Amino acid sequence: MDNGGLSRDQWRFVGNELLTKASAVTVRGVLNMLIENLNANDSRPVIPLGHGDPSAFPSFRTATAAEDALCSAIRSAKFNGYSSTVGIPAARSAVADHLSKDLPHKLSPDDVFLTIGCTQALEAIVSVLARPKSNILLPRPGYPYYEARAGFSHLEVRHFDLVPEKGWEVDLEAVEALSDENTVAMVIINPGNPCGNVFKYEHLKKVAETAKKLGILVISDEVYDHLTFGSSPFVPMGVFASIVPVVTVGSISKRWIVPGWRLGWLVTNDPDGILRKQGIVDCIKGFLNITSDPATFTQGALPQILENTPSDFFEKINVVLGECANILYDRIKEIPCLTCPIKPEGSMFAMVKLNLPLLESIKDDLEFCRKLAEEESVIVLPGVAVGLKNWLRITFAVEPSSIEDGLRRVKAFHQRHTKKQ
Amino acid sequence: MDNGGLSRDQWRFVGNELLTKASAVTVRGVLNMLIENLNANDSRPVIPLGHGDPSAFPSFRTATAAEDALCSAIRSAKFNGYSSTVGIPAARSAVADHLSKDLPHKLSPDDVFLTIGCTQALEAIVSVLARPKSNILLPRPGYPYYEARAGFSHLEVRHFDLVPEKGWEVDLEAVEALSDENTVAMVIINPGNPCGNVFKYEHLKKVAETAKKLGILVISDEVYDHLTFGSSPFVPMGVFASIVPVVTVGSISKRWIVPGWRLGWLVTNDPDGILRKQGIVDCIKGFLNITSDPATFTQGALPQILENTPSDFFEKINVVLGECANILYDRIKEIPCLTCPIKPEGSMFAMVKLNLPLLESIKDDLEFCRKLAEEESVIVLPGVAVGLKNWLRITFAVEPSSIEDGLRRVKAFHQRHTKKQ
Repeated sequence: MDNGGLSRDQWRFVGNELLTKASAVTVRGVLNMLIENLNANDSRPVIPLGHGDPSAFPSFRTATAAEDALCSAIRSAKFNGYSSTVGIPAARSAVADHLSKDLPHKLSPDDVFLTIGCTQALEAIVSVLARPKSNILLPRPGYPYYEARAGFSHLEVRHFDLVPEKGWEVDLEAVEALSDENTVAMVIINPGNPCGNVFKYEHLKKVAETAKKLGILVISDEVYDHLTFGSSPFVPMGVFASIVPVVTVGSISKRWIVPGWRLGWLVTNDPDGILRKQGIVDCIKGFLNITSDPATFTQGALPQILENTPSDFFEKINVVLGECANILYDRIKEIPCLTCPIKPEGSMFAMVKLNLPLLESIKDDLEFCRKLAEEESVIVLPGVAVGLKNWLRITFAVEPSSIEDGLRRVKAFHQRHTKKQ
Repeated sequence: MDNGGLSRDQWRFVGNELLTKASAVTVRGVLNMLIENLNANDSRPVIPLGHGDPSAFPSFRTATAAEDALCSAIRSAKFNGYSSTVGIPAARSAVADHLSKDLPHKLSPDDVFLTIGCTQALEAIVSVLARPKSNILLPRPGYPYYEARAGFSHLEVRHFDLVPEKGWEVDLEAVEALSDENTVAMVIINPGNPCGNVFKYEHLKKVAETAKKLGILVISDEVYDHLTFGSSPFVPMGVFASIVPVVTVGSISKRWIVPGWRLGWLVTNDPDGILRKQGIVDCIKGFLNITSDPATFTQGALPQILENTPSDFFEKINVVLGECANILYDRIKEIPCLTCPIKPEGSMFAMVKLNLPLLESIKDDLEFCRKLAEEESVIVLPGVAVGLKNWLRITFAVEPSSIEDGLRRVKAFHQRHTKKQ
């Protein structure tokens, strides 16, 4: 009898376990666990190769034009009030124009829904599709936030593989085999998180044709759009919207290196009006009616952010990312317990395979990462967090000197833990 | 056979009707409908007395100190990255200190969870409490967003009345009568939306004692905190946290007149650790793990916003609101078809009763508001949108000259529609 005279079971409220369950394996949760494993006595700087947020590094400071746009929107005092739930018209229009540059069709402002980062765009589309018995096809490896939201919304998840031997292309036969009459959509992430691949035009066309055959929607996560530095140019999935309706999700978070600004979008590429007819568009609006909105002044600044950022800002970022990807790929070759099947051509990540038999008393990827954090102050994401056990997701979006330093430490770690012959 | 060769029913995705249903009656939805009823040929300015967002009026421009804090956080480039899901430590700490000034106990930063406006704080607590069979007690009249979110989360809603004859106090007997073993919480909104009342210390204490007796949580919506200008001072519900655990939701939206900035909080007033023991705290964290966050730079600016805004800014706002509330109350007395049971002492709204028998061919509050918009370019929210049919919710948070002008037009409308004797 504590709690001021009431025994504990007299309180009738209990937390909804669905929430703790859905959020149990998130990238941030695993990274936090690794950070707790750091050795406070190591005087060297921590090398964070686990995240998708290089904003703290000098080479990745956002464009002054973007800061200017934001401050001037704030100083105007025109954007202190509520926005409309779908986004303010000028910002919707600016995103439509911005994305239409890469498309054969012209997007209308009505195709654009502004969201609180790409995160809320994913929340929206998963909530819209979650009807009883429905299932969604997700890539493996992938971005676990999809699994978390689907779990929270009681939307069944089925996984198709990305094939490392084919440059992480979608296993389209698996997509067909997994699909049934309750399958509503498939997700692709391009440029790839966690694989660093960039899908080619022809492959995306096959994705569209497969989805059309199955009668399912394609959700194209393009949050890393235009962050490419290899031989494959970025092709938006919306290019194939005349074959199959496409919902594109994206944001300014990655390309402008401002994930904390929380401005994203959900875009319907729907020249034949199928999404509208199927009630998807009304439900997107319904979702946005009962959730919060991105800050109005950030929406107010968006036209200037998109227009005024000089192209050399983007070029410079891609040069740095390409340089870092090269360093990563070359250094990995010198570490026998690691294999990187393809050199990353986009996004901020590479997937690297662990050759555990070469190592002494390290049983899996999680243990590898835990010990690496503890002994070398290097943070790397275990593949299990993105669906691929005994792989690693390594981000190269850090200062070039840091990726060098980090991989040197991984090499030393490897040498120390190599199995004696 | 259109859609590129596929007949419509071959598409397997359909929108989740729960979303359109949950969002059907929101304040913004009803206001949008009224705005569509405006007469474009009326050359007079529209008088918007339907909203809770006076940010567009010169008398309600936010404090320069708040704008300064935001711009300097952006220029620092320290807050471009992701925040932690519960909020950045400095901002949590600043909110804890800010709210503790009015409390007998000192809040810890761990009691504070930063949210995307008060909206996301409501989403969070409703999602956390929504377990199968649970029900929640909501005030009538109230704020329909609670109903929308509860509907989306399958949380059953039961309504208790606020009693106009008692200054809109909670009908505590009804609370007891409605409650059963599946009741998990009750909501109060103080200062009141839509009633403009401010609960007195003794009444809040009775609310706490009733909730304790029933074993339920009190959710106190204090988004209008300190916007008071009558005889009753604002008393936070957290004052009674030693009687019953209290979850307080709030934001800078109303007091700083920046609803578009989207910065709010959910605070656990839980000196006996009951919320923690019942799993509520873990589930709040779980919810925040799988949703988006308020912009990091707004969090970064929050300590300065809270500290540097001069007290005369708040005083001036309350003086203007009090003046507007007086004008509203006095003018309503001159309009026979309207009765305002108490003069508003807080928030931005008054509830006003319609005396329909005095009017010719106006059948209900909705028709009253529709015709008023059409004939007089005055927007007022029909009571049905906040749960009280044939009442009106009138906001007085506009320029004093606008409230005068608006009520003059309502009077003319009344005179034109008065039933001939």
